Amino acid sequence: MKTVPLTVRPVSKSGFAAFGDVVETQGAELRLINQGSTERFHDLASIDVLDEGGKAIVSLFRGQPFAPPIEITMMERHPLGSQLFYPVSDRPFLTVVASDEGGRPGAPVAFLCPAGVGVNYAKNTWHHPLLSLEEVCDFIVVDRDGPGSNLEEYDYPDTRYRIDAVSG
Amino acid sequence: MKTVPLTVRPVSKSGFAAFGDVVETQGAELRLINQGSTERFHDLASIDVLDEGGKAIVSLFRGQPFAPPIEITMMERHPLGSQLFYPVSDRPFLTVVASDEGGRPGAPVAFLCPAGVGVNYAKNTWHHPLLSLEEVCDFIVVDRDGPGSNLEEYDYPDTRYRIDAVSG
Repeated sequence: MKTVPLTVRPVSKSGFAAFGDVVETQGAELRLINQGSTERFHDLASIDVLDEGGKAIVSLFRGQPFAPPIEITMMERHPLGSQLFYPVSDRPFLTVVASDEGGRPGAPVAFLCPAGVGVNYAKNTWHHPLLSLEEVCDFIVVDRDGPGSNLEEYDYPDTRYRIDAVSG
Repeated sequence: MKTVPLTVRPVSKSGFAAFGDVVETQGAELRLINQGSTERFHDLASIDVLDEGGKAIVSLFRGQPFAPPIEITMMERHPLGSQLFYPVSDRPFLTVVASDEGGRPGAPVAFLCPAGVGVNYAKNTWHHPLLSLEEVCDFIVVDRDGPGSNLEEYDYPDTRYRIDAVSG
């Protein structure tokens, strides 16, 4: 088993595009509604959950905190639907994703999402389970409920990736 | 035009049941996932957006603050889909709803949602536009996009309802 350092980058729409959506007001379509009393930042992510009789559900995830060094030893993906995380707590969090390489995740890529910025993993995108930082954090999650098997997990067989600092 | 005082009640699942879901962890199905590092409060609301080719979208609403006296002069509803509001800001907000009486809203009913509690208006439920309190507040909103006319508004013709205090 070898250990490989994993650096953390600031999340960006361009850097994350291969994995899904960055959920943020910046760059979003802004509609002024309710006689001007509400700004609607419209349609921030591609909710893709209808395959094989699925539907969108809304849940709240409460994540225990992690702190460096953080070891990434496995990944998971949801073959039947997208999964959106938006932080309710006013805190940054880590997202770790990977490209698919012949049915297995490639080397992970880590991004820091600042407070007020979420992510939406595209259907079948390899990602690490939730990584809150320093404090217990709540997230609103929009994902899929329905028939079929919607979870695949993979343990890296001979490498562990280690995040030694989270300053993106 | 007559003015009628409107009292504010604390929101509860039973009190709000005729209008939709209270979105909260209390009483929710709890699943421990991610090797125990995440609590998943599962499926907190009935997302009902598929009529006539609709789909679920996620937006962020930024609401300007209101303060008593707050006058309720109109209501709106969405005939084709539910609409969920979950507060991202650590603040309470007001929800004002009404039963339907022959195609028009009856007298409004006002509820105070504490921080960390949201609501999901059932399809075609009369409700007032967003009422943040005291500070600008952000909400994650899950509602419907798709073909068809999904907004109906109604101005109360001879009555205005006035909220003089928001302590629920």
